[in-house]
Amino acid sequence: MTYRAPVDQIAFILNRVVAFPQLAQTERFAEATPETVEAILTGAARLATDVIAPVNRAGDLHPARLENGALRSSPGFAEAFRALADGGWIGLSADPDHGGMGLPQALNMAVNEMVASGCLALQLNPLLTQGQIEALEHHGSDELKALYLPKLTSGEWSGTMNLTEPQAGSDVGALTTRAERAGDGTYRITGQKIFITWGDSDVTENVCHLVLARLPDGAPGTRGISLFMVPKLIPDENGRPGVPNDLRVVSLEHKLGIHGSPTCVMSFEGAKGWLVGQEHKGMAAMFTMMNCARLGVGIQGVAQAEAALQQAVAYAAERNQMGPIIRHPDVRRMLAEARAEVFAARAICLGCAVAIDMARATGSADWAARAAFLTPIAKAYGTDVGIRVADMGVQVHGGMGYIEETGAAQYLRDVRITAIYEGTNGIQAMDLVGRKLADGGAAATALLDEILDGAKAAQARQPDLAHEVWQAAETLREATLDLLELAPEDRFAGAVPYLMAFARVLGAHYHLRAAVEGGPATLARVHVNRILPQFCADLAAVRAGGADLGALDDALLAGQMAG
Amino acid sequence: MTYRAPVDQIAFILNRVVAFPQLAQTERFAEATPETVEAILTGAARLATDVIAPVNRAGDLHPARLENGALRSSPGFAEAFRALADGGWIGLSADPDHGGMGLPQALNMAVNEMVASGCLALQLNPLLTQGQIEALEHHGSDELKALYLPKLTSGEWSGTMNLTEPQAGSDVGALTTRAERAGDGTYRITGQKIFITWGDSDVTENVCHLVLARLPDGAPGTRGISLFMVPKLIPDENGRPGVPNDLRVVSLEHKLGIHGSPTCVMSFEGAKGWLVGQEHKGMAAMFTMMNCARLGVGIQGVAQAEAALQQAVAYAAERNQMGPIIRHPDVRRMLAEARAEVFAARAICLGCAVAIDMARATGSADWAARAAFLTPIAKAYGTDVGIRVADMGVQVHGGMGYIEETGAAQYLRDVRITAIYEGTNGIQAMDLVGRKLADGGAAATALLDEILDGAKAAQARQPDLAHEVWQAAETLREATLDLLELAPEDRFAGAVPYLMAFARVLGAHYHLRAAVEGGPATLARVHVNRILPQFCADLAAVRAGGADLGALDDALLAGQMAG
Repeated sequence: MTYRAPVDQIAFILNRVVAFPQLAQTERFAEATPETVEAILTGAARLATDVIAPVNRAGDLHPARLENGALRSSPGFAEAFRALADGGWIGLSADPDHGGMGLPQALNMAVNEMVASGCLALQLNPLLTQGQIEALEHHGSDELKALYLPKLTSGEWSGTMNLTEPQAGSDVGALTTRAERAGDGTYRITGQKIFITWGDSDVTENVCHLVLARLPDGAPGTRGISLFMVPKLIPDENGRPGVPNDLRVVSLEHKLGIHGSPTCVMSFEGAKGWLVGQEHKGMAAMFTMMNCARLGVGIQGVAQAEAALQQAVAYAAERNQMGPIIRHPDVRRMLAEARAEVFAARAICLGCAVAIDMARATGSADWAARAAFLTPIAKAYGTDVGIRVADMGVQVHGGMGYIEETGAAQYLRDVRITAIYEGTNGIQAMDLVGRKLADGGAAATALLDEILDGAKAAQARQPDLAHEVWQAAETLREATLDLLELAPEDRFAGAVPYLMAFARVLGAHYHLRAAVEGGPATLARVHVNRILPQFCADLAAVRAGGADLGALDDALLAGQMAG
Repeated sequence: MTYRAPVDQIAFILNRVVAFPQLAQTERFAEATPETVEAILTGAARLATDVIAPVNRAGDLHPARLENGALRSSPGFAEAFRALADGGWIGLSADPDHGGMGLPQALNMAVNEMVASGCLALQLNPLLTQGQIEALEHHGSDELKALYLPKLTSGEWSGTMNLTEPQAGSDVGALTTRAERAGDGTYRITGQKIFITWGDSDVTENVCHLVLARLPDGAPGTRGISLFMVPKLIPDENGRPGVPNDLRVVSLEHKLGIHGSPTCVMSFEGAKGWLVGQEHKGMAAMFTMMNCARLGVGIQGVAQAEAALQQAVAYAAERNQMGPIIRHPDVRRMLAEARAEVFAARAICLGCAVAIDMARATGSADWAARAAFLTPIAKAYGTDVGIRVADMGVQVHGGMGYIEETGAAQYLRDVRITAIYEGTNGIQAMDLVGRKLADGGAAATALLDEILDGAKAAQARQPDLAHEVWQAAETLREATLDLLELAPEDRFAGAVPYLMAFARVLGAHYHLRAAVEGGPATLARVHVNRILPQFCADLAAVRAGGADLGALDDALLAGQMAG
């Protein structure tokens, strides 16, 4: 099945639906014109379809493996990665002073989507490298920047994030990896990390690990954690990869999907490290990397949804069971709902990216708050849509969908991780109703006001759609105020439903804007008929708080009758 | 992870929630007392936990394979199957005249649930045999019955269903397998079938294929199809497996899950067959088998949900991230919703089984209509819950859920097929809004009246819950009447949402009855707060009809902008 990059749909969202055109009016992103968008998207589409997508199946069938402790990546991955790196795609939004192109994240995320549609397992490598570039740009010393950024930007070296330990998953503060001052300004890192994506690589000449560890005088919990750059090969005086550092890959995980992406257990055994940012302030630096990565993961969900949907549509068009099944009402319903959700999730992710860009370009606190508010929604909704659409893709294929050779099942297996890594979707939702509403709901309200204003403005051209969007946004505004009154336990019980309700209303808002801007009103209608109404059930769950959950007996949950 | 059969929850549903106690008042099922229930469930629980569940992982890791054309099943499967067969479990509800125990299907389905929780791939074998027993009991000649039923009931031989061909999936009528009269009362069957579950077996000494094929004078479409018994080894004059028939397994499929269940491409090359039922009336006989199998597949969904949920609860209780995660509101929400849905789906399936039993025991057309109406709901909702809960189980495990060794992912991969085989869930929904509402909604209305009456009767003891169930049932009653007015295209567009809405209301009804009967009102509250409200969104989709779907351009669905 051939993936065809949806260049026109993406360009339409950038140019007409989200605030991307405002970027070209800033000094920083003056080059981000519609012409640039078209040139970049067209080039990336070629890369994704001609170079990246063709290795996707091989990655699934021939997982990355260890050979005498060294990683051997899946067939074709090295060549595909090289084409991606040499095309300059990794540094699309990196600092031009270190070899980047300085273009907006919004454009970078659009490119990332296409690459991740082609092959999720491979795209994880540059995605993590991009996150590391971000972290170093914001928190690295000038020496670290000068040494690492050009290599990461060019894709000669790749980057990883080392947070998780067996006992420290969502609770990062429980980590036990130790750092000690070596006395020469460097540090010695000792400990074990798990779930390290692309923890080794034979597609780049060096692997740069950003590792969270605790100094002897670091406080318990997240406050006492520092961040270190720990390269696989220690750069020599010319910045070339030199002697091996004291670290190794212990083993690779056997996973449900993304077989081409090596998931490593890493052991740091007094490895030499360099501090990134300040001592004990590692979480702040890591959050820079994670926020970028979270949006990137949301885009991965959209990407896999797009690829799975295209395959399902193609199959449905050619499969005849009393006529092509794409004309069967129920098959058409599945495909239409999927397309409406892919559109909505993409717009939410790109809207979030534009907010990040506007915040950087203008220094505006409002745009920064918007970006912060949208990030967990983009991550959780984008990945949920990814899973839902990939699952639908299997279903549309009927029995063929269950056969691995068809490829539909691989999308489902691959995309499933996106709801878990970079903070589970539950963690995202708690971030939304916790930290992101800690402003008393100011960021939420500002966004809802914009949605309400948009609906009013659309009344003349799309009266029915505008009415329903306005009504939903108003209901959500009230629910937001109610949520703010709840005790933390109750608020967290409603976190995921609240996030999902917000995503559905936000998606409807973007669909409405698309319809007003000359896009397909037919798709907006599908969203308002079939996706938006689910927010009522979400809000019912939000209103329920956590009392009913607390009243439940654990034994009953476990399948026993007692309680 | 050790599965623990939920004997008390199942017994409570049988004895207090569904109409099972009425069975003991019929002559046919006078033995189906609470004591029998307890003895059977306790014995089956031991079988499922001690014998069946232990082979589940081996089936996944070591798929069934072909060796010189002969099937080699997964390690341990033969022994586990033998224990199941020798315990008399296959014939639990088979005719006592041929070695069965003559107990109700409701009890058989409860047993099937436990076995399918233990190992879905293995349980498929006896499930299909049970379906074949049903078909022969209803449509087989006395000779066929006398020869085959004792062997199938004892599990010495196993049974398969051969419907699907590459071009004939949901459209069974498109099949091209030919039957020719041999002149001696037997037939010669020639053609290829795909997706044949347990199409060969080394755990039984013979494999009995029920094959749909068309006689030379058979009309096109489903009307001209006949059903044949085509044994792998032709029984000799003593009824012992004799010479091999002209059929073979061409290949096995490489599937997303149920690796222990061989999915065969079968080739019939002039194989000797015996007619089952009348010539050209094969679909009626096959439907007997399929209806039983459909409910059985719904139960498989419940079974896998139960096992996945138990594993998730156990993990959440022991995994500490700032306290055991089972106490984290969002994790608890996921587990609670899952438990509420498992309860609802199980009650719906067992309620359907009781209706089948009551129809048989009393000959009542009303009970038969009830059974027919509930079958597609039980199949589609049971399997959807299976997939949803298995997916939730992966999520609760976080990163560990994505690692195959954990086992959570296997549930998701295994259960995924249940929404597809025995008629996709979309086909079930079309059956519901098509054939099952063809009585002008009589069966639906009778059921809704019962739900409304139940809610009224519960008002004194559970006023809040009763009010919400009554309101929902009343809304659904109106929606049903509206649906009946719609043109076929519009009705089919709303088929799945309608089925899901009905399942949620029906589930709430059973939860309410459980609460009134001394069961956990806390669980009913979770269902009414969090599961029931989704029916509003479903009904919005039903009301939308199919106009918005028809208006959508295919190119837009495929990711292009045109249209």
